[in-house]
Amino acid sequence: MKAFLLKRPGPIATGPIVYSDVSCPEPGPGQVLLRVLACGVCHSNLHMVEGDWLPSTPAFTPIIPGHEVVGRIEALGASVAGLAVGDRVGVQPLFSTCGRCAFCRSGREELCQTKEITGESVNGGYAEYMVADALFVHKVPEVLSDVEAAPLFCPGITGYAAVKKARLDAADQVAIFGIGGVGHMALQFAILTGARTVAVTGSARHRELAQELGASRVIDSSQGDPVEELRRDRALDAALVFAPSEDVVNTALRALKPGGRLIVGVNSSIRFFPFALEQTIVGSLLGTREMMERVLSIAASGRLHVAAEAMPLAAASDALQALKDRTVRGRLVLVP
Amino acid sequence: MKAFLLKRPGPIATGPIVYSDVSCPEPGPGQVLLRVLACGVCHSNLHMVEGDWLPSTPAFTPIIPGHEVVGRIEALGASVAGLAVGDRVGVQPLFSTCGRCAFCRSGREELCQTKEITGESVNGGYAEYMVADALFVHKVPEVLSDVEAAPLFCPGITGYAAVKKARLDAADQVAIFGIGGVGHMALQFAILTGARTVAVTGSARHRELAQELGASRVIDSSQGDPVEELRRDRALDAALVFAPSEDVVNTALRALKPGGRLIVGVNSSIRFFPFALEQTIVGSLLGTREMMERVLSIAASGRLHVAAEAMPLAAASDALQALKDRTVRGRLVLVP
Amino acid sequence: MKAFLLKRPGPIATGPIVYSDVSCPEPGPGQVLLRVLACGVCHSNLHMVEGDWLPSTPAFTPIIPGHEVVGRIEALGASVAGLAVGDRVGVQPLFSTCGRCAFCRSGREELCQTKEITGESVNGGYAEYMVADALFVHKVPEVLSDVEAAPLFCPGITGYAAVKKARLDAADQVAIFGIGGVGHMALQFAILTGARTVAVTGSARHRELAQELGASRVIDSSQGDPVEELRRDRALDAALVFAPSEDVVNTALRALKPGGRLIVGVNSSIRFFPFALEQTIVGSLLGTREMMERVLSIAASGRLHVAAEAMPLAAASDALQALKDRTVRGRLVLVP
Amino acid sequence: MKAFLLKRPGPIATGPIVYSDVSCPEPGPGQVLLRVLACGVCHSNLHMVEGDWLPSTPAFTPIIPGHEVVGRIEALGASVAGLAVGDRVGVQPLFSTCGRCAFCRSGREELCQTKEITGESVNGGYAEYMVADALFVHKVPEVLSDVEAAPLFCPGITGYAAVKKARLDAADQVAIFGIGGVGHMALQFAILTGARTVAVTGSARHRELAQELGASRVIDSSQGDPVEELRRDRALDAALVFAPSEDVVNTALRALKPGGRLIVGVNSSIRFFPFALEQTIVGSLLGTREMMERVLSIAASGRLHVAAEAMPLAAASDALQALKDRTVRGRLVLVP
Repeated sequence: MKAFLLKRPGPIATGPIVYSDVSCPEPGPGQVLLRVLACGVCHSNLHMVEGDWLPSTPAFTPIIPGHEVVGRIEALGASVAGLAVGDRVGVQPLFSTCGRCAFCRSGREELCQTKEITGESVNGGYAEYMVADALFVHKVPEVLSDVEAAPLFCPGITGYAAVKKARLDAADQVAIFGIGGVGHMALQFAILTGARTVAVTGSARHRELAQELGASRVIDSSQGDPVEELRRDRALDAALVFAPSEDVVNTALRALKPGGRLIVGVNSSIRFFPFALEQTIVGSLLGTREMMERVLSIAASGRLHVAAEAMPLAAASDALQALKDRTVRGRLVLVP
Repeated sequence: MKAFLLKRPGPIATGPIVYSDVSCPEPGPGQVLLRVLACGVCHSNLHMVEGDWLPSTPAFTPIIPGHEVVGRIEALGASVAGLAVGDRVGVQPLFSTCGRCAFCRSGREELCQTKEITGESVNGGYAEYMVADALFVHKVPEVLSDVEAAPLFCPGITGYAAVKKARLDAADQVAIFGIGGVGHMALQFAILTGARTVAVTGSARHRELAQELGASRVIDSSQGDPVEELRRDRALDAALVFAPSEDVVNTALRALKPGGRLIVGVNSSIRFFPFALEQTIVGSLLGTREMMERVLSIAASGRLHVAAEAMPLAAASDALQALKDRTVRGRLVLVP
Repeated sequence: MKAFLLKRPGPIATGPIVYSDVSCPEPGPGQVLLRVLACGVCHSNLHMVEGDWLPSTPAFTPIIPGHEVVGRIEALGASVAGLAVGDRVGVQPLFSTCGRCAFCRSGREELCQTKEITGESVNGGYAEYMVADALFVHKVPEVLSDVEAAPLFCPGITGYAAVKKARLDAADQVAIFGIGGVGHMALQFAILTGARTVAVTGSARHRELAQELGASRVIDSSQGDPVEELRRDRALDAALVFAPSEDVVNTALRALKPGGRLIVGVNSSIRFFPFALEQTIVGSLLGTREMMERVLSIAASGRLHVAAEAMPLAAASDALQALKDRTVRGRLVLVP
Repeated sequence: MKAFLLKRPGPIATGPIVYSDVSCPEPGPGQVLLRVLACGVCHSNLHMVEGDWLPSTPAFTPIIPGHEVVGRIEALGASVAGLAVGDRVGVQPLFSTCGRCAFCRSGREELCQTKEITGESVNGGYAEYMVADALFVHKVPEVLSDVEAAPLFCPGITGYAAVKKARLDAADQVAIFGIGGVGHMALQFAILTGARTVAVTGSARHRELAQELGASRVIDSSQGDPVEELRRDRALDAALVFAPSEDVVNTALRALKPGGRLIVGVNSSIRFFPFALEQTIVGSLLGTREMMERVLSIAASGRLHVAAEAMPLAAASDALQALKDRTVRGRLVLVP
């Protein structure tokens, strides 16, 4: 089969991923073989491919990247129940967990310390076929196309999990910093809670997107410090940061009301934590399978707009380059 | 009456507070006049007195410091109900709040943005008499002496409020960093939740105190990085930091399990926040009146040991110097 | 001034409330005098007037009923701050609380055991003028008319408080039983959380209203047991009952999923509580001032539709009769 | 092997369970074979045996009862990881769950609708050997004897799960009604939270036990209505009911403060639910594997006293009779 292999991480312009002929994987016990229908291109794929996360990630090379995948089941491994050849299913970054630790058993499986991550510790979806853990795939509602469904499996659940941690109410005001792949989904989940939403981004393309998605307000963060503007009419009850910038995280914290909640979806440092304001900072990376089912159920009701654009699988390297150049509006999705 | 006046903040050795004759205050409407029986000496008094918080605090000079006070009511101002001359009551740092804002009306009055702080924005308890807001004093249970009760009004409630935010269970392990005034109270409230407690401090005096109070384990933080030791047998579910050191805050975060809770009771920065671990950081400074009543109720049951030592009011400057020199084991409490 | 006086509770047809000339009240310290602009007619007014709550309620006779009031401030009593003559404000059932008990100080002031209830333990709004506690009135946003604002002060906050207790998520399904005054507001707050909503009522008028307000589904409860229908596509995560019927409460409990939440807004008994299903039952009657501000803020954003119809104050007795006859679609609001 | 078979449910005096020779079970894939070391005798065994739960339970006959088991692994079925022959493990009532439903995946596996219950839907521990699901057994800490460990697997986790739902604080007062198998464990978990505990029971034997375990107060419920006594000094914040009596559940609700929490561990009806008091009623039956690990960790620290008494397996029928006659103080535990 055809697949992109990451052999040696490096700048995307130097071609670290190579479109190759590799042998088709076989599903082990408890696994399924998927014919990939669509695979989203995530900014974190770019990080791994360029070597930003060495030496821990990728876990091995050559590896096939890609962790937001929709595919059709072609074959079942041994001991698989509840799934059939022909089912259309999706795969999250959370490829599998141990099922035995306290995290797995208390509704926080995303924190399992022996989890596998799709496309990072096992092969992913930049390929014509991949295997997945039968316990970690999700049936995709029929009303969703392959291309719009794929991003639900990473930006969708990431945005949902972050918004849940913000505990919003219809009378709250929440700011979302960064309206890219994750941010544009988080904005929609925030709108669904009834809260007043403020989208903050330096990208004209993303401001336009936020407007279309129904943000209550849109702020251009390239025009100076947005803190005053964020607090103008009423307090900022919560903030979610997906823009990969320490400045943004610290700006969000300054804008937040006393007792407010800051949800952080990027690595950062906190320059000054004014403990007297009794604010809360929470990290948010992944979501659970139960959350994934919730995201799919909400999407099936037609209330989410996934800004996605199809590209041929063979163009994966160009897609990552476009992401690096910040010329992408919605999600690029590879279609084999 | 006699009182200590802070005229011009500066190093404690230079005598910024002066034992003076001042006129006795009169209670306004809704206030009571207290004859001070005991007033604890808090590290934050030292900060204010030495000018660490200029220009915002103190709100004016000359000011009388002191915010953990037990006194007897000598006179009632107009419109005071539910209190009588002769009642023995205590005063917290939270001198008063507006009673009208969303914080006041939703159980988070400690975040009121127009609150007054005893001894910082209004005169405090380093004096023979002081006035207090009748709605913000608390009757002191008879079983408690003046000297042991006074520290309940700052370290007591501060420790309680921090432990509440940690949401401990009898199967959890929690570390308390810093076993001074607040830390030794927080340790006791943590023990009361049934959690396994680890006291971490570089002070031999404080390690001894922690041992006596019943800490499950005591770690000497002057002997290198305690992270490994903290995680030895089991995960660290929560950590509370009262040691005024950025290093300690960052050490605590590193020791914490994924999804764990870090309660921060000091100003700090977070050098690296690994958002992927989905930990929570919460600031904790003050507590509400309802919490104060809970602290008093627990103390009345005889389950708290307040490490306190009486000193004459006239020795307040020496008390602050001792605090600076770190030669204090429990709380110093001024007695007029 | 003109006002309705309840002299001796009895069947509404026998004229228990009498339109009378009474002297205009004067505001005491901390109170304001309101010229009443609008006062909603609540089903619980009917209960009190007909004597259903004797001997505890009303607290005295003759009393002026009415607890959802919008008025303009005509005069200020002593010691009133933050309000001015001419302000348009609203009054809830929660006329005042003690401000000192654990409930008042922990964000649950609605449970204060010495609270006063408007129109039940103090005179209410079926009148040209009334007094209110200055700390318990709320400024009414300009965009709201008197008639649409008044019901926010009882069905509005009652519905909001109940929906909060249900802790809904955009992927949940919630049923609201009874789409009268409170139910039609609760339905809207439930829709705002993003949850899938099911309105259940035996009234054709109310089914039509629910449809217009955007309920995901509407079920006619007069057509047999709705339990199967309620569980059809997916689990029922929560149910809110405002229909004054024990049968309905027990039906809702049967329809609820294991671990689900039943919010009860009427007196009832639970015939069989299957503890093994680990469901939660919560009573909900009133809301706090902080919640009231939230309701007003949501209403000001134009997202609530208050089904209200004006009637002259003089017709209060007819309004109560119409309520009894169940011929009312939205809220009847008396206008002096 | 020897085992007790329930052939046809009926009064215990008529001998519904028969000590028989049956073939030793073999572990299927994912299962382990245990040599039973101890099996507690639960009141619910008596219910099943006497036919109180027909026709739903038992799921088949003849069946071997017993759901709180400690055993040593004798053999592993296929695909078992993380366990070895010789390990001493325990088995809860929660024999297995589907692992796929929303309950299983959100930390509420005890609500799984296709769970198996040990000794009710699969064979249990009134036997020399039994099989268990490898994913649902728990290693038993060495410091615990077989006989004291067995009851942790039913009364232990049942009591823990109930106390968790009460969300107690060190300043709260909680009442536990019924100090039998579950109640005496719940009392201890409640004490561990620091709350003031009140044990309420009509049994002199159980009052003595409660006293020994450290209850703050003990009330004899056979001496008239305990409501006044329960509220005497302070409010009753929470109540847990394990006494199988509707009267007790309704008494507990009456004693509870407004906004209080009632945890119900028995089937019951609520005669009158005063919704205006905004109390919460929660059912509690089982616990999760993660909770079970917590119980074992707390027990390993030596802080729990399991009142247990060994009896030979062959005396199971006598044990059930003794339970019926209410002559048992702690837990009877069968030892093969």
